[in-house]
Amino acid sequence: MRTGGVLNIFGKLLILIALCLLSPIPFSIYFNDGMVMTFLSCSLIGTISGFTLVALFAPESDLGYRDGFAVVVLSWLGLAILGALPFYFSGEMNAFVDCFFESMSGFTTTGSTILTTVEVLPKSVLFWRALTHWIGGMGIIVLSLAIMPLLGIGGMQLFQAEMPGPTKDRLAPRIQDTARILWSVYLLFTLVEILLLMIGGLDFFDATCHAFATLATGGFSTHTASVGYFNSVYIETVIIVFMFLAGVNFSLHYRVLSGKLSAYWQNEEFRFYVGISLFAIVLLVLVNMYHHVYDNLGDNIRTAFFQVFSILTTTGFGTADFEQWPPVCKVLLVSLMFVGGCAGSTGGGIKVVRVLLFFKYARMQLTHLVHPRSVSAIKMGKIKVPQEVMLSILGFFALYIAFFLLATLLVTALGVDVLTGSTAVIATLNNIGPGLNLVGPAQNFGHLPPLAKLVLSFCMLAGRLELYTVAVLLTPDFWAMARKPVWRWQLQGTGK
Amino acid sequence: MRTGGVLNIFGKLLILIALCLLSPIPFSIYFNDGMVMTFLSCSLIGTISGFTLVALFAPESDLGYRDGFAVVVLSWLGLAILGALPFYFSGEMNAFVDCFFESMSGFTTTGSTILTTVEVLPKSVLFWRALTHWIGGMGIIVLSLAIMPLLGIGGMQLFQAEMPGPTKDRLAPRIQDTARILWSVYLLFTLVEILLLMIGGLDFFDATCHAFATLATGGFSTHTASVGYFNSVYIETVIIVFMFLAGVNFSLHYRVLSGKLSAYWQNEEFRFYVGISLFAIVLLVLVNMYHHVYDNLGDNIRTAFFQVFSILTTTGFGTADFEQWPPVCKVLLVSLMFVGGCAGSTGGGIKVVRVLLFFKYARMQLTHLVHPRSVSAIKMGKIKVPQEVMLSILGFFALYIAFFLLATLLVTALGVDVLTGSTAVIATLNNIGPGLNLVGPAQNFGHLPPLAKLVLSFCMLAGRLELYTVAVLLTPDFWAMARKPVWRWQLQGTGK
Repeated sequence: MRTGGVLNIFGKLLILIALCLLSPIPFSIYFNDGMVMTFLSCSLIGTISGFTLVALFAPESDLGYRDGFAVVVLSWLGLAILGALPFYFSGEMNAFVDCFFESMSGFTTTGSTILTTVEVLPKSVLFWRALTHWIGGMGIIVLSLAIMPLLGIGGMQLFQAEMPGPTKDRLAPRIQDTARILWSVYLLFTLVEILLLMIGGLDFFDATCHAFATLATGGFSTHTASVGYFNSVYIETVIIVFMFLAGVNFSLHYRVLSGKLSAYWQNEEFRFYVGISLFAIVLLVLVNMYHHVYDNLGDNIRTAFFQVFSILTTTGFGTADFEQWPPVCKVLLVSLMFVGGCAGSTGGGIKVVRVLLFFKYARMQLTHLVHPRSVSAIKMGKIKVPQEVMLSILGFFALYIAFFLLATLLVTALGVDVLTGSTAVIATLNNIGPGLNLVGPAQNFGHLPPLAKLVLSFCMLAGRLELYTVAVLLTPDFWAMARKPVWRWQLQGTGK
Repeated sequence: MRTGGVLNIFGKLLILIALCLLSPIPFSIYFNDGMVMTFLSCSLIGTISGFTLVALFAPESDLGYRDGFAVVVLSWLGLAILGALPFYFSGEMNAFVDCFFESMSGFTTTGSTILTTVEVLPKSVLFWRALTHWIGGMGIIVLSLAIMPLLGIGGMQLFQAEMPGPTKDRLAPRIQDTARILWSVYLLFTLVEILLLMIGGLDFFDATCHAFATLATGGFSTHTASVGYFNSVYIETVIIVFMFLAGVNFSLHYRVLSGKLSAYWQNEEFRFYVGISLFAIVLLVLVNMYHHVYDNLGDNIRTAFFQVFSILTTTGFGTADFEQWPPVCKVLLVSLMFVGGCAGSTGGGIKVVRVLLFFKYARMQLTHLVHPRSVSAIKMGKIKVPQEVMLSILGFFALYIAFFLLATLLVTALGVDVLTGSTAVIATLNNIGPGLNLVGPAQNFGHLPPLAKLVLSFCMLAGRLELYTVAVLLTPDFWAMARKPVWRWQLQGTGK
């Protein structure tokens, strides 16, 4: 690892985020919430830290993909710390660990909150909170569609072929092109959702914050009652549609927008994603009808649609307290939490494609037991899935279970009960938001012990970066290859 | 599938179990519990059914391994139904579904009970209850060490080389030889444990029943308080040692008994099994010490040892109500439930070797990400693990999760709460016995809805037969290949 080069990039990123920290200022002025100086100072802290790093460490041109792991993890960690400052200075959160949790929950597009009442935060800080989602979502699209497939992380190499944009030999330009294309889709969707929400009666502030949280599959709302606050079928429908879209591979959106309208349905992952959603919705509606949870069928269907897409895409918005639903509905929703969105979407979780391949493999094994001489291969669409992809999915599941177990053990060791602790880990590791019991949709994470909040923040990061990225940094091998940083002053006189 | 041949073998097996149904009679006479006629009639029912099948269907010599799936599943099902009769006729269980649950729990060596008070059963029925464990354990040793590796089920082909006994070309004699050798080890251990328990003061009846339940990693006791009833350090120690031995690959025992004393330690799965156990024990002792769960360290260590081996080997005996332990201990014990015993032991669960290979694979993937050019293979001991074995483990996990999810959804759909329902499925699918909450170690399964009991009985069977065996029978492909049965009378005049 080239420590100096990594820190140089990290410095540049801090400067970029410092610029973003200026964007809540217009809201602060408009709502007169007295946070202008706070955001200015936070931005200044970011800028100074960033420039210091850039001044100290020279860029290195020969950064390898190993350095990518360090850049990515360091960036998300640094972003979370810098992004926590406005929360801290707002004075509404006492401990810095709470601010860090909230900020990490934002940038990882998780949406778990430590706030009992969201409205206590100044409007500009609420905007910042939603913006962390949007920035995080932007990062993850590029990461999952342009960078991770090249690293061969947990079966994602299958999507190498799906990268849009002109193919060039060198890595960096291709990533830049891909990023530009995908981000324009992301931006377009965000703008359309803002517009549609404003047509539904939301003011620009609420519309923007909710659009940010929807497209990033984050889930932070500007109201404690989440989307339920608006109690509007139109608003819920708009958000359902955009949650659904945010859970789809963004390169598919690009293709459809480029005119290939059949791209959605030709994609097997997309079909499976739609299938799971519809199956879950029908099941929820039937069970809730049987148990008379809702007075009329309309409410039943509407809440089922909203909750399924909110959980499956790992957004975590709420219009109903599913803690009050029958046990089987809770089990179904927890199962959906693990699935998550499609690969290349902003959604978290295990990803639809991995789940699909997983079960395809089990079915193939059964066929093989019945017909031992049959030669069968697993296909995704028309592409034959190589064995190594299947094997790296095996590795992904192993890591996933290891993280899940370890985190649950740690959180419960800190005194949290079994159901709250395990579902808090599920909710953060899959970047969803709410869990069950004391971290259910009508509850929050504020009452957990500070150390548990740190463990859960780590889960959010690990889950968001597909585990491998974080796990690699925990291996001694990785650090054994770290080089001493190259300081700028060492380059003096070398002619560089 | 050769339906006729399968039914012929099944008939012979029924006759064998009908003979076993005579063995509780001496106990019935000794304790004068009035069950002699019951056991005689149960035995008669079995004998008549068996002979009818044998009379109707001719044996077929060319049975393929596909027929093996049908024989195995049919046998366990038939055994459970026949074995339920003594419970039913004892009059202490009201519904037949309860008797079936108890009997299936016996033959699959699960040890979950529907009884609130075990002592209500006549002594001879309690003996039969323990004997079902012992018979089931006998079946599973041969199945897991001699038959499943040949079928290549879920990574078990790795153990093909471990089969003891003289190697011959044809399948049947080899299985018979292997069976004879392994059963003598099983019998030897049972006799030694009976002897040691009797030295500790148990009468012949209690000693035999507990030895049966230990060696089969079953868990049925003759007392409601389970092994805690005896409150004796000696008895607990003996049972701990034999639970530990029952969780080890029986072909390893054979090698050690044949003089290769180093066989245990040379086996990587064995070392990992010991490692997990010690890690869990130390953790439990420390947490329970920190929370002052026990007054003195001795009790703490003793209960930790007992509970860890009881859960890890999937025996399910209890000397403590771990429902009362801190949450982290419960999470740890539930995690151990998934691991289970070594492959080729009588223990259930996922099996130590699969878990070991699973995490080895994850570690290899991480190494590969750091050193992309490194060529590394996964080894077990000195043997290189083929990719297909790793892939079949992937398939196993997928099936495992599918069964777990489906069963949990069904059980909670019947109104059982989330924690009770999910841990009831874990406890039965892994053939352990107790779960958490309303099916915790101080509770029982009696209060569950009848349909839930059937679902859980199915879980026991599926878990015991390594999922694949049961899952294969659920595929339409399997039945498409079924042949019409050959009736005896059709052979008349054909000269056979």
